[in-house]
Amino acid sequence: MTEPPRPPESVPATPAPAVPAVLVQTAQQLRDAALAGTGAFDLVRSLTTEVGPRLAGSPGDAAAVRWGAETMRALGFANVRAEPVKVPHWKRGAETGEILTPYPQAVVLSALGGSPATPVAGLEGAVLEVESLAAMEALAKEAVAGKIVFYSPKMQRANDGSGYGAVVRIRGEGVIKAAEKGAIAVLIRSVSTANNRLPHTGSARTLAGLPPIPCAALSVPDADLLQRQIASGQPLRFRLRLDTQLLPDGDSANVIGEVPGREKPDEVVLLGCHLDSWELGAGAEDDAAGCAVVLETGRRLLALKERPRRTVRVVLFANEEFGLSGARAYAEAHGAEIAKHSLAAESDLGSGRILRFSSRVRAEALPWIEGLSGLLQPLGVERRGNDARGGADLMPLAAAGVPLADLDPDATKYFDVHHSANDTLDKVDAKGLDQAVAAHLVLALLAAEAPMAFGPVDPPERSRR
Amino acid sequence: MTEPPRPPESVPATPAPAVPAVLVQTAQQLRDAALAGTGAFDLVRSLTTEVGPRLAGSPGDAAAVRWGAETMRALGFANVRAEPVKVPHWKRGAETGEILTPYPQAVVLSALGGSPATPVAGLEGAVLEVESLAAMEALAKEAVAGKIVFYSPKMQRANDGSGYGAVVRIRGEGVIKAAEKGAIAVLIRSVSTANNRLPHTGSARTLAGLPPIPCAALSVPDADLLQRQIASGQPLRFRLRLDTQLLPDGDSANVIGEVPGREKPDEVVLLGCHLDSWELGAGAEDDAAGCAVVLETGRRLLALKERPRRTVRVVLFANEEFGLSGARAYAEAHGAEIAKHSLAAESDLGSGRILRFSSRVRAEALPWIEGLSGLLQPLGVERRGNDARGGADLMPLAAAGVPLADLDPDATKYFDVHHSANDTLDKVDAKGLDQAVAAHLVLALLAAEAPMAFGPVDPPERSRR
Repeated sequence: MTEPPRPPESVPATPAPAVPAVLVQTAQQLRDAALAGTGAFDLVRSLTTEVGPRLAGSPGDAAAVRWGAETMRALGFANVRAEPVKVPHWKRGAETGEILTPYPQAVVLSALGGSPATPVAGLEGAVLEVESLAAMEALAKEAVAGKIVFYSPKMQRANDGSGYGAVVRIRGEGVIKAAEKGAIAVLIRSVSTANNRLPHTGSARTLAGLPPIPCAALSVPDADLLQRQIASGQPLRFRLRLDTQLLPDGDSANVIGEVPGREKPDEVVLLGCHLDSWELGAGAEDDAAGCAVVLETGRRLLALKERPRRTVRVVLFANEEFGLSGARAYAEAHGAEIAKHSLAAESDLGSGRILRFSSRVRAEALPWIEGLSGLLQPLGVERRGNDARGGADLMPLAAAGVPLADLDPDATKYFDVHHSANDTLDKVDAKGLDQAVAAHLVLALLAAEAPMAFGPVDPPERSRR
Repeated sequence: MTEPPRPPESVPATPAPAVPAVLVQTAQQLRDAALAGTGAFDLVRSLTTEVGPRLAGSPGDAAAVRWGAETMRALGFANVRAEPVKVPHWKRGAETGEILTPYPQAVVLSALGGSPATPVAGLEGAVLEVESLAAMEALAKEAVAGKIVFYSPKMQRANDGSGYGAVVRIRGEGVIKAAEKGAIAVLIRSVSTANNRLPHTGSARTLAGLPPIPCAALSVPDADLLQRQIASGQPLRFRLRLDTQLLPDGDSANVIGEVPGREKPDEVVLLGCHLDSWELGAGAEDDAAGCAVVLETGRRLLALKERPRRTVRVVLFANEEFGLSGARAYAEAHGAEIAKHSLAAESDLGSGRILRFSSRVRAEALPWIEGLSGLLQPLGVERRGNDARGGADLMPLAAAGVPLADLDPDATKYFDVHHSANDTLDKVDAKGLDQAVAAHLVLALLAAEAPMAFGPVDPPERSRR
């Protein structure tokens, strides 16, 4: 949407002024008060209790939009509005799976988002276990045609959630590749670090469109069961029934509220999260937690005697989960002011304590960012590089050269519950949220007060979670 | 079935002979070899992979009986037979629950075993939260009549599983008491120490018969959700749909195999477990684990050069979960030889390491029991009192004065998965099983070799898990 900017390295390194003492003091006060306890957990409690599941286009989604706008008004945000977003509306119905041979057993599974339905009587076939995308590529078409492909790789636990990227491509590309070779359906091991008997869904929607064949995630213990039965050396036959529906596009909204800037109200520091959720759970960690962090951060900035120089805009994005409609709609609606986005950050990795801080700013701004980072240090936040990638909803902004910040939480337990029925309030870390609010206050305040521009910057590579 | 025996205290205390050195050596060898690794986990793997869920009367139950007899034969047991047991056959169908007001949300629940169905359109009513059985007793009939009662108390975690007894009575008595005051249905918080989005079922069948009104367990996070919505002060209305069926009684069996005694083959040391399971999970911890322990113990005794003096009989009881039909059938079929049961023990609390050993023997036998206990000490097994209660399937034997031993495993995690879909192979502690086999070998060998009778004894009080 704008010209790709020059890479940061090529910008002459003129030192930015040090962070003024009075600003340091304000930041410290905000930070330490948040650490002592915030209302973030209560916001997650409110959204999960009063709304719960909120898949794009569903009644819960509409209730969430109302909740978002009402909550922002109650918290004192200015310019609160729900900016319309058209969203795809996919719906899950009954879903069953059963091993027919060698040892009949019912299994627990859930359709991946966007999966077509099977015939009403179900779809039956021999199961072919495939251990990776590379293994699928190496298979001959004849080996795959007519089969139900079962992708079995396991996700590894890590505090940066890096195990997710290693296997999640199977959800999109894996289904396409199997269909290209004539598979009749795809089963995947749930992309999860837990071993609960709950499937973890997720979008199988790809850039090329909806998945062409029925696809579902098995709970981890059920994936284990399939592997054990297959290991017996006997052919495994399976019956899958998915009753899904793709309904006409629905209406949702990006819910937006602001802390208007005192000097440069047209320049925007964007703090984002997404309001929608998969419908199996209550979307507590994904992403009520992120919404609570940015809402509570805004509330505390609004309570300052002197508001920050630039506007801090909190955006609760619509439909992150099933195609990033909200992100696209925001970029379209705000195309004219994208260059006015000073910095953007998204909170969408659960309620853990913030462990790491990355930036993506031009070189002139790095000394200021180091000052910011110094204020994060007492929170135990490690300074990483100038290679932030931004959250999924920031992709269009990032592609347009908007500077980015990543405050990465401890994601050790996040993928235990992510996209599953287990994503409920009881999994949320209230203390982690408080620390994350503290970190976001430092980020937002210093970004909004910075005496220089952070960008434009070179966009990150496309690949992301 | 026999006269109640005198209490142990009244028996003159003539010291029993010390355990002979050669027997000590055999016990140590058996114990230490088991600690180094057994086939117990593989037995759990086999039952959960090849059979899986096996509720009394279901096709899985019949498959389990075949599995039990085949496995016993393959392991070299003598006198393998399936002794017929008539079992009730209750079946779960579709089940849904939804909060209608104040904040509509679907919840996750499962019918309690024996629950009648609701009308097809569901059953709707106002929800009354009740915190305990005592609180229900204190309520006036008018406060309960026409309501859906929701029992909300939480189970506490403990390594002896003692939190279970504190709340599980609600499953039986709580339903009856609510029905007596005119409640139209009962919801309970799942009796569980975990916070997974999985209901934990269990029998609501009582001595008085089947529960008179529909009853279901909410997953723990859903029980929390109801409590939060109720805490808002607004009336909570709920719709429950349970499609259950009580079918004609089915055919099952106690599966029995023996290590025939070399000198006193008619005297029996009974090692029990139960073969049936709730059908939501694979019955891995409850009670494939216990079956694996007693089967593996038998296999290792069969491999001894010289078999023990008395017969060691392994009994895989039918239908422990839904009315103890197997226990009753065993006591009836073996009524004539009950006095020949030297000692009985049941393994039915999961795959954890054995932590504690209790006996119930006459006083003359206590020195021998102390010798036995000394051999358990290197396994980290603490000696408890002479007040063993036996497992649920041993109740009729215990009531008839059969001596008992309890080898109590570490149950810290057992109630995380018990009676839920999460009871799958991946939850099983292979090393715990090996240690439990080691302890059962010591128990079985020393009981089968004892030079004196252990009983008869005074039966334990009726109350038990």
